[in-house]
Amino acid sequence: MMEKAAPARGFAAGEFARRIAGAQAELARNNLDGLLLTTPAEFYYFTGFLTRFWESPTRPWFLIIPQSGEPVAVIPTIGAPLMRRTAVRDIRTWSSPDLKDDGVSLLADTLSELFKDGRVGTPDGIETHVRMPLADFQRLTQMVGPVRIEGDCGIVANLRMVKSQAEIEKIENACGIAERAFANVREFARPGVGFDMVCREFQRACLAQGADWVPYLAGGHGPCGYDDVISPATSAPLQNGDILMLDTGLVWDGYFCDFDRNFSLGPADNETAAAYDVLIEATQAGFEAIRPGQRACDIFAAMDQVLTGGAGTSENGRLGHGLGIQLTEWPSLIPGDTSELKTGMVLTLEPSILTRDGCMLVHEENVVIEETGARYLTKPCPKGLPVLDQAI
Amino acid sequence: MMEKAAPARGFAAGEFARRIAGAQAELARNNLDGLLLTTPAEFYYFTGFLTRFWESPTRPWFLIIPQSGEPVAVIPTIGAPLMRRTAVRDIRTWSSPDLKDDGVSLLADTLSELFKDGRVGTPDGIETHVRMPLADFQRLTQMVGPVRIEGDCGIVANLRMVKSQAEIEKIENACGIAERAFANVREFARPGVGFDMVCREFQRACLAQGADWVPYLAGGHGPCGYDDVISPATSAPLQNGDILMLDTGLVWDGYFCDFDRNFSLGPADNETAAAYDVLIEATQAGFEAIRPGQRACDIFAAMDQVLTGGAGTSENGRLGHGLGIQLTEWPSLIPGDTSELKTGMVLTLEPSILTRDGCMLVHEENVVIEETGARYLTKPCPKGLPVLDQAI
Repeated sequence: MMEKAAPARGFAAGEFARRIAGAQAELARNNLDGLLLTTPAEFYYFTGFLTRFWESPTRPWFLIIPQSGEPVAVIPTIGAPLMRRTAVRDIRTWSSPDLKDDGVSLLADTLSELFKDGRVGTPDGIETHVRMPLADFQRLTQMVGPVRIEGDCGIVANLRMVKSQAEIEKIENACGIAERAFANVREFARPGVGFDMVCREFQRACLAQGADWVPYLAGGHGPCGYDDVISPATSAPLQNGDILMLDTGLVWDGYFCDFDRNFSLGPADNETAAAYDVLIEATQAGFEAIRPGQRACDIFAAMDQVLTGGAGTSENGRLGHGLGIQLTEWPSLIPGDTSELKTGMVLTLEPSILTRDGCMLVHEENVVIEETGARYLTKPCPKGLPVLDQAI
Repeated sequence: MMEKAAPARGFAAGEFARRIAGAQAELARNNLDGLLLTTPAEFYYFTGFLTRFWESPTRPWFLIIPQSGEPVAVIPTIGAPLMRRTAVRDIRTWSSPDLKDDGVSLLADTLSELFKDGRVGTPDGIETHVRMPLADFQRLTQMVGPVRIEGDCGIVANLRMVKSQAEIEKIENACGIAERAFANVREFARPGVGFDMVCREFQRACLAQGADWVPYLAGGHGPCGYDDVISPATSAPLQNGDILMLDTGLVWDGYFCDFDRNFSLGPADNETAAAYDVLIEATQAGFEAIRPGQRACDIFAAMDQVLTGGAGTSENGRLGHGLGIQLTEWPSLIPGDTSELKTGMVLTLEPSILTRDGCMLVHEENVVIEETGARYLTKPCPKGLPVLDQAI
């Protein structure tokens, strides 16, 4: 199979206008006069404003999308040159940080001017937060007087959940970069090498293969799996017989992949190898259950049937999730998420299974939902735990 | 000069207990009964809980520090194994994500049990945010009934601003890693190489030299500087005569460095070279002005005197800032920040200067404040813009 060429960076004209129009239609339907947005993912989604500068928590940033008309950015002066490269024309700035008034009165004036006594929605549901100091948010709600700041009725989440073709291509490209990095793991993952060095080398491999940056790497290793999947890597060396798992969220042009690969350092015992095959089977069961119109919980159920016979619970809380501009997005593959699956959604399938001695295995693939069902964005692993055959 | 050996990872027994006791003394002084914390930096500061899993925005996490007694963690089940490796003994978990009640009632019950009708502070000032959905925060404030959730009176910021010896050693080690990566820049920064490739190679160099991860890299290039410092790297190739700037925030054991280096690809013109020397002079003026008891604004003034003759403004809003667990922390070197400088604070000195054609140069060093004045954690650049002498 030929490697796909990397897609173009950025988005064609019209993409952001379509997203904004989509939000505006939903604003009208929900009797909201505008959206107030504060987070990196929201800025990138609606304007293409992409920067690692968000790593600094110092400055708040605000983007307003009125029910009709053009978006307005109320941002620190330092962000103006980059914002001027987007389609946003109404850019209002203040010199931040300002310990007395860090954009709050400029934002309040702007909201009052745009909305008079209207209702503004800000994302307030699961997987969201308001990225500004709480005291400033409380002061803002006082200052804007008759303008009411409320929840966004899930408008932003519902829009972002369904990806455009261009978004899917970016995620698929990120997946391809990670695949190539995983193909290099046998070059540096050997018994005796510290797990921290393996993680460092894997991040280097992701960058060498084309990642812009590597915001997320988790993993584990141990004789029958790993006892948790969120601890930072220690210098404990890999051992012959270990199962090694690396789970990366690398970014290409602002979009994440999120999947893992397991390797056995030398042949695995039968029990662990069998547990791995159950994960592959569960992943495939989830894949086959996916159709537009099914619900997130249906995919959970299909996978859980393979994993537990239908116990209805999951060790790590879920068996997959959305992804895109963020490492994890809506929906969640859990019994309680009845979100309807739609063409264009991108999901991870992420089953986990207990082995023994408090250990577990986790497997993860990325898929996109098309009209006839799911399509893998990763190269899905077949049964049979990959073995790295190196002598000590 | 000998390279310093890397310090030990983690913290000696007593470090977290001291931090918690420090918070508790301030809680008592401010008539607050406890702290409610929600962010990665707050978790790491008070417990040592360090994970890249925070990259997922899905789940909220809560840490409570009562005015007396032990801290309580109210966290998703997936975090329990790692939290059990800290000194926190009271760990309460729920299976997250839960679309109906994502930890809110468990948190409300815990707050009510601990504080009855007391006052709980949560960080609400500059450079903070509450990391949980707004709707859940609002529901929480209703559910906890007589317990009032208020601001934290700056308690957490004031504690975190003054670093312990162990924290300073971690930041200094991060600085050393970045210094070694900067020493490699001439190996991959040549005319004709895309700036995006330079950024990728620089991140690889940071990892090779010992970074755990590289959450931040900014930079720019152009004939007389760069026109903004937050844009992502494009594939535009470096040109002979360009000034190249790379500014990294890499992490070692949970602590950041944050400084930049400028290079000229071939000899710079006299004007640009002179502007660079002004930055070095301004940095040194800031360095020499630092004494415990001085204020953040005094350091701004000393640097601004060199840069502008005392105009009192700065292109990028400030001439330096704190750093530590986060890339940027309090205080800010701006005219309006009267924070008193104290022994143990770690600062960046970050002057910027306009050259011509809308271009600027930025220089940055990291220092720690000691009893007699500042000490560089970086190897400070002398005057004389470094020249990378490669043929095209």
